[in-house]
Amino acid sequence: MFSIAPHRIAIRSKLLEAFSSSLPLAAETEPHLRGALLQTLQHPGSLVRAQLVYDMAGAYGLEEMRSRNLAVAVEYFHTASLVFDDLPCMDDATQRRGEPCIHRSHGEAAAVLAALGLVNRAYALLWSGLAGSTPAQQSTAGSYVEKCLGVEGVLNGQSQDLHYASRTGNRPSPQQVATGKTVSLIQLSLVLPALLGGAEPGEVKLLERLAAFWGLSYQALDDLKDVFQASGQTGKTGARDASLNRPNLALAIGAPNAFRRLERLMRLGDCTLDRLVERMPSLVFLTELRGRFRDELASFQNSQPALA
Amino acid sequence: MFSIAPHRIAIRSKLLEAFSSSLPLAAETEPHLRGALLQTLQHPGSLVRAQLVYDMAGAYGLEEMRSRNLAVAVEYFHTASLVFDDLPCMDDATQRRGEPCIHRSHGEAAAVLAALGLVNRAYALLWSGLAGSTPAQQSTAGSYVEKCLGVEGVLNGQSQDLHYASRTGNRPSPQQVATGKTVSLIQLSLVLPALLGGAEPGEVKLLERLAAFWGLSYQALDDLKDVFQASGQTGKTGARDASLNRPNLALAIGAPNAFRRLERLMRLGDCTLDRLVERMPSLVFLTELRGRFRDELASFQNSQPALA
Repeated sequence: MFSIAPHRIAIRSKLLEAFSSSLPLAAETEPHLRGALLQTLQHPGSLVRAQLVYDMAGAYGLEEMRSRNLAVAVEYFHTASLVFDDLPCMDDATQRRGEPCIHRSHGEAAAVLAALGLVNRAYALLWSGLAGSTPAQQSTAGSYVEKCLGVEGVLNGQSQDLHYASRTGNRPSPQQVATGKTVSLIQLSLVLPALLGGAEPGEVKLLERLAAFWGLSYQALDDLKDVFQASGQTGKTGARDASLNRPNLALAIGAPNAFRRLERLMRLGDCTLDRLVERMPSLVFLTELRGRFRDELASFQNSQPALA
Repeated sequence: MFSIAPHRIAIRSKLLEAFSSSLPLAAETEPHLRGALLQTLQHPGSLVRAQLVYDMAGAYGLEEMRSRNLAVAVEYFHTASLVFDDLPCMDDATQRRGEPCIHRSHGEAAAVLAALGLVNRAYALLWSGLAGSTPAQQSTAGSYVEKCLGVEGVLNGQSQDLHYASRTGNRPSPQQVATGKTVSLIQLSLVLPALLGGAEPGEVKLLERLAAFWGLSYQALDDLKDVFQASGQTGKTGARDASLNRPNLALAIGAPNAFRRLERLMRLGDCTLDRLVERMPSLVFLTELRGRFRDELASFQNSQPALA
């Protein structure tokens, strides 16, 4: 079993605190909006993106406060995207992070407005996280944020995901959908701090590639879990992809092939990571994260004897 | 009849072009998302906020490209807020800008994702509009954007608007709701360019007050139109407030009182504007805009003999 180092536990608790406290609510906040936001802020999820951003920012020499603001910003974007994805007009999910979805607890309108509140606050945190870099770095970082989160990135991925069933000719593959839907945010997490810390173009390219391999691995495991696990095990609604006809690698090419693909993606990620750490030894913390993902994968495999 | 000066027509056509072309779509944009965005970009509405921002930015000496980017950014925020407001879970409107609402033409999910695409692009345009001011000005402007658009501003206003019917004790007045819902964006339009152009605090205070008087006047006229006009005349769904039990000044205090309140707000706005133009003569273009609003008010009054 992989054990988590004490300093990681300290960072995690710092980020947990920052996630819950970085969107203070005024007394006159309308009660439905307030309730929706409080529920969201009290259920931070894995914080894996926040930790990535925080560690990357540290490795690239950004100060503590900037690192924390960037980390919470990316995590708020991610959380907002989940609140939107869960809406009845999208995935129509019932459960998220072990709780009823926000729109089930507080109504659809409050869910939409709360998610927009997270987005608004995330941009403000990003803004303050940008200050301190050169104008050229800020501008490159700003464009990168737009590319990952906008119509070319997460939004297109989500739209392809939703309308996968109705596409006939020219249908994107599950991996293409995952590139927009999942890879974009991992890329933002790895690349944004590097851009603000003045990384060289060759390093940025390697980070983008690592994010692609990791994002696709992560989505492949998520697809496998969707097929095999009941909602009690994942904290969110299970077996949605088959019933909604959504792109799912395991459904598209079969679970054993999806597993082999996942293992190949992990190997490609390993090679990329080795080259990165050789160039920049302070990125060695990324091997720890990879270890945690491998543990998660192994524990899922053990729970599904047919796949072991 | 008030006639529009030729240079204003030129500015309007420049902003129309900028509105339609500032969110370029890649070939691989998913068709539903693409359709929703194209419909939105092809129906710019009045562009009154964009013109305000553009003129204010010019008066405060910002360069042409920055002025245009800030103008389109604020207009995209406004347009996105209308797409969200029209959703079935909010106002459930059917018509907007003389067309079926985006969610009626392209589905709810595409409407949500398109609106998020506008928000994302708007922040990128804001970012590029900020570059060139001092770090302190950028930081103040960033916080102001957050305040106007976030949980303290537009989002709280919209939430109060939606849940007005269900509030019993402690219900906000229609003017309080309008302060969040309508005034916030007018304040952003007037104050943001001033902050980036280095306006003094006294000037900013006057601009905020002017925005409040104008925003409340604008909302009061909108409330009166909602009560009196059919959708054919306004290009959007009519008589929604009564049927949805939304805050409406004319319904709350009666149409004649609402008219008197509107005239009082206009007078207070006039005094504030006089003081502003005295301090800063280049803001005289604002009197032209006030003239156009007065014309609109007179033409509405003439169409409703009972109110003349």
